[in-house]
Amino acid sequence: MVNVAVQDKYVNGVNVSAVQAVAKDIQSDFELAKCTFRLHNKWINGSINSSNIDGFFGFKKDIAHPNPFSLEVDEPSCLAGSNKAPGPVEYLLHALVGCLTTTMVYHSAIRDIQIDEVDTEVEGDLDLRGFLGISNDVPKGYQNIRVNFKVKTDEQNLDRLKALSKLSPVFDVVSKGTDVQVSVERI
Amino acid sequence: MVNVAVQDKYVNGVNVSAVQAVAKDIQSDFELAKCTFRLHNKWINGSINSSNIDGFFGFKKDIAHPNPFSLEVDEPSCLAGSNKAPGPVEYLLHALVGCLTTTMVYHSAIRDIQIDEVDTEVEGDLDLRGFLGISNDVPKGYQNIRVNFKVKTDEQNLDRLKALSKLSPVFDVVSKGTDVQVSVERI
Repeated sequence: MVNVAVQDKYVNGVNVSAVQAVAKDIQSDFELAKCTFRLHNKWINGSINSSNIDGFFGFKKDIAHPNPFSLEVDEPSCLAGSNKAPGPVEYLLHALVGCLTTTMVYHSAIRDIQIDEVDTEVEGDLDLRGFLGISNDVPKGYQNIRVNFKVKTDEQNLDRLKALSKLSPVFDVVSKGTDVQVSVERI
Repeated sequence: MVNVAVQDKYVNGVNVSAVQAVAKDIQSDFELAKCTFRLHNKWINGSINSSNIDGFFGFKKDIAHPNPFSLEVDEPSCLAGSNKAPGPVEYLLHALVGCLTTTMVYHSAIRDIQIDEVDTEVEGDLDLRGFLGISNDVPKGYQNIRVNFKVKTDEQNLDRLKALSKLSPVFDVVSKGTDVQVSVERI
């Protein structure tokens, strides 16, 4: 008997063999696909609060992050903050473009579409009259968001990459909305 | 003539005088309220990409962050990532709770409602069959998100704090959705 080393297939830096193995496992047992992502947030003072992200539930078990992540939010000084960290509305744009990009890269890798570079500008328009309660007719959140990808790839791939990026979970939430339950109890 | 030092009013660590001054300025000129938040993202490789946040447009001018922020996304190893940074869906939860918290703290400060502590658990349920394209009936994003605040404050404030938190711009986007335009062009 000879041991044959089977090489994992990589496209766009993505281990396609690993992604396909996950998909195959899930196809044979849908319960594996049910994830609960979570974090713990503590208000520090004024405009600063901090989230600790130590793991998530998925594949029927708790999965710890080897190195838990800590993320702060703050506001700029013109909004009575202290400029120590990005604002929540900036984190939202980051979550969106991060997810659109990863989704584009993963789904193109699985389809053998090569991408050499991705460089993206994101903008979101927000009128502070909504948040400040100055006008009830103005939305409190972004009125619109623009994500402009520049991709180094074959010209023929561009339309497909746009469609693939829209399989993104965060795009799904930000473009359609989802159910958010808020409860407040006393410590 | 005597110079009188006027002390700014702080509640919950928020400079209420500064927030009220911003609101007053905007009431006299709505153009000041129109902000465009932005970032630049670069794909690094595989599951990793990075956003640079160097400023935004608001109050009729470009406002630079004194120290630009850099944020990475990655995926956990069970999703073919390298665990170097939070995932996009985790950043989304952080943006949401960060904004709900800041909104609760600012709006309660303006109304003289004192908050001593905020400690929050956030969870979001996501079925990977959507993202992986295994089922078209399963949403790609969060099916629901739960934000459970524990607040050290007078019992009588709890309902009001819940209502105030929902003035949050990110809550508005995540619960209702907004228009997201995606374009892909070639480098």
